[in-house]
Amino acid sequence: MPPFDLPEGDPFGPHNLPYGVFSLPGSTERTVGVRLGDHVLDAGAAARALGSPHVGLLASPTLDPLLAAGRTTWSQVRRALTEWVTDPAHRPTVEPLFHPLSGVTLHLPFQVADYVDFYSSEHHARNAGAIFRPDAGDVLLPNWKHLPIGYHGRAGTVVVSGTDVVRPSGQRKAPDAPAPVFGPSVRLDIEAEVGFVVGVPSRQGSPVALTDFREHVFGLCLLNDWSARDLQAWEYVPLGPFLAKSFATSVSAWITPLEALENARVTPPERTHPLLPYLDDAAAEPGGYDLRISVALNGQVISDPPFSTMYWTAAQQLAHLTVNGASLRTGDLYGSGTVSGPQPHERGSLLELTWNGRDPLELPDGKRTFLEDGDVVTLSAWAPGPDGTRVGLGEVSGQVIAG
Amino acid sequence: MPPFDLPEGDPFGPHNLPYGVFSLPGSTERTVGVRLGDHVLDAGAAARALGSPHVGLLASPTLDPLLAAGRTTWSQVRRALTEWVTDPAHRPTVEPLFHPLSGVTLHLPFQVADYVDFYSSEHHARNAGAIFRPDAGDVLLPNWKHLPIGYHGRAGTVVVSGTDVVRPSGQRKAPDAPAPVFGPSVRLDIEAEVGFVVGVPSRQGSPVALTDFREHVFGLCLLNDWSARDLQAWEYVPLGPFLAKSFATSVSAWITPLEALENARVTPPERTHPLLPYLDDAAAEPGGYDLRISVALNGQVISDPPFSTMYWTAAQQLAHLTVNGASLRTGDLYGSGTVSGPQPHERGSLLELTWNGRDPLELPDGKRTFLEDGDVVTLSAWAPGPDGTRVGLGEVSGQVIAG
Repeated sequence: MPPFDLPEGDPFGPHNLPYGVFSLPGSTERTVGVRLGDHVLDAGAAARALGSPHVGLLASPTLDPLLAAGRTTWSQVRRALTEWVTDPAHRPTVEPLFHPLSGVTLHLPFQVADYVDFYSSEHHARNAGAIFRPDAGDVLLPNWKHLPIGYHGRAGTVVVSGTDVVRPSGQRKAPDAPAPVFGPSVRLDIEAEVGFVVGVPSRQGSPVALTDFREHVFGLCLLNDWSARDLQAWEYVPLGPFLAKSFATSVSAWITPLEALENARVTPPERTHPLLPYLDDAAAEPGGYDLRISVALNGQVISDPPFSTMYWTAAQQLAHLTVNGASLRTGDLYGSGTVSGPQPHERGSLLELTWNGRDPLELPDGKRTFLEDGDVVTLSAWAPGPDGTRVGLGEVSGQVIAG
Repeated sequence: MPPFDLPEGDPFGPHNLPYGVFSLPGSTERTVGVRLGDHVLDAGAAARALGSPHVGLLASPTLDPLLAAGRTTWSQVRRALTEWVTDPAHRPTVEPLFHPLSGVTLHLPFQVADYVDFYSSEHHARNAGAIFRPDAGDVLLPNWKHLPIGYHGRAGTVVVSGTDVVRPSGQRKAPDAPAPVFGPSVRLDIEAEVGFVVGVPSRQGSPVALTDFREHVFGLCLLNDWSARDLQAWEYVPLGPFLAKSFATSVSAWITPLEALENARVTPPERTHPLLPYLDDAAAEPGGYDLRISVALNGQVISDPPFSTMYWTAAQQLAHLTVNGASLRTGDLYGSGTVSGPQPHERGSLLELTWNGRDPLELPDGKRTFLEDGDVVTLSAWAPGPDGTRVGLGEVSGQVIAG
């Protein structure tokens, strides 16, 4: 039976165990599932069958109770799940509680509280600077190396992988046009990102220290921050992107717990500027994660952004976003910002890959600058696991449909 | 008995009937209240006592069910409440269900879904432009007259009137300093705004037309968008304000239904630029509201911002924020942006009132540029009601405490 007899090295083996929420055909009842291979375990049913004290956290229509439960409980639940799917004694009980992935519907696994998006890849920031401010002396803005730039996005339009994305309409204005025009975006783009999911809340007025990152953040997902570049160019001064981003943000259905990514931790790039104490991670445990992302457009891989090259870490982002006393809630989601590596084939947006449309991509179905209706974008990723294994991070996929 | 025998012209008479959520001393149970004079009616208890079909909406710990119920139901509930508090036949039943306001605790009355803040006062935008870009030819940015500029804020740090506001810390950098420094904000400011509360959700991918504003928006509140100007100046390029705003946003405890403000509707200022059709309100019903706001600092009125002078209306803001297909949820909150009128004493921020600190305010306790620890800021407002009455909009108050 596949879930127990996985091929060696399966990226969704018992070393991974990401969490999601699923329902069965003909049912609207949602419940927590744990992925093993190409199957999903009804985790609540397993907990009940095995008399686990964690039934309340797992027999739930969202991950929210588990997210809120805190790090000690996260570890206990993970240890229990590992035992359930590896101990042959449990096999007769647990095996019937698996469903083939192809037969279930996956849902947004938690209620998104606040959504923040960062801008933490130096390569991405430099590319964007070079494209939009080609005559600037330094293409990086003065604040960029001192703090992780971020802004709030729209939590209510975060959707799960597989959800169609309607091409947004809005205002755009050519630099030499006398007035803006209205219509569907003609420069619809992607941003390949990693999303971090907050579990444990914090109190308003109390910053969360860099070193408390793993007390609050449960895990991560893949995130596509769809972006309408033409809307953005016209609207973003002086208060930042708004409609260019708020129409949809896609996340993967599986949340990988940070505990599954211990072998993926790496030291972030060398800091070229001294950091204020609340962001200084020189003495901290390695804050980077070696996640290997691939971006596919209609099945063709167009980029391989390396998350290990991100300048600002998720721990620094969390310390920054709370240093003013802003509180955290269970379900807060924050995106890393577009992941772009130093190489041309490592850029995480079409803006960069086509250099703002100047250098179209050559695809089997023709040239491409920005997205066309019908295009399917899929981000997938993996990370190094224990003993040479890979930890699969699933995928986030979405098709653009006409507005 | 005061609730029934109100002095004539009380701004919280039966023509007003704003909604809130309260609890009684020694109890953690929250329920919907309706304000009459200086009393609050336990609306759920009244509904139950009178056999109303609206018990489910009113015997609730938040306004969310009522908000979601839609415009027809909003009218029915308001008609029923008006009858309960005016028909002498109901007096013996209803009178015991009133509590003095001074004896209850008021809570955040709904769960804030997404929070958006606009920037829709032309006078405020011109003042900000003149302060920060004194050498610009036109102090208004090119996009300002074409769309209501907005951005997302932090929903999780919206707090109810009366909540202390901890002075935020963060990075600031003087223009000639070589590097930023960290510490408590030294330029803590207020922004006097009006907040609009969305009741009826919309579907992702489907814009909400200008004319559908009152199908979706239930009512309004007062809103103080606390702002750390020093943090903002350093962080806001290129993605907008983040920590400068996210530490706290205060709202009044009372949500005034739009139905109570029919007599306050006014035509907004003349549009100086042609508008794209989705924003064109020339043929629409008057979209402005004549709300007279007062800003008091430690009890001294320092400004009287007139909401009727806002260039962009709440209906235009809603049409804009959804025109890209962004969906609405029950509990979405959007702020008007700082309300500033054309006169110096009508400016809605200390930034403008003191011209960025150049012209300190003379207060009984000394000069003031930005807020000091211990300062109490209170916004209050009223609007014209029927037959020469006033509709009181309550107040939003908060004290700054050291971080």
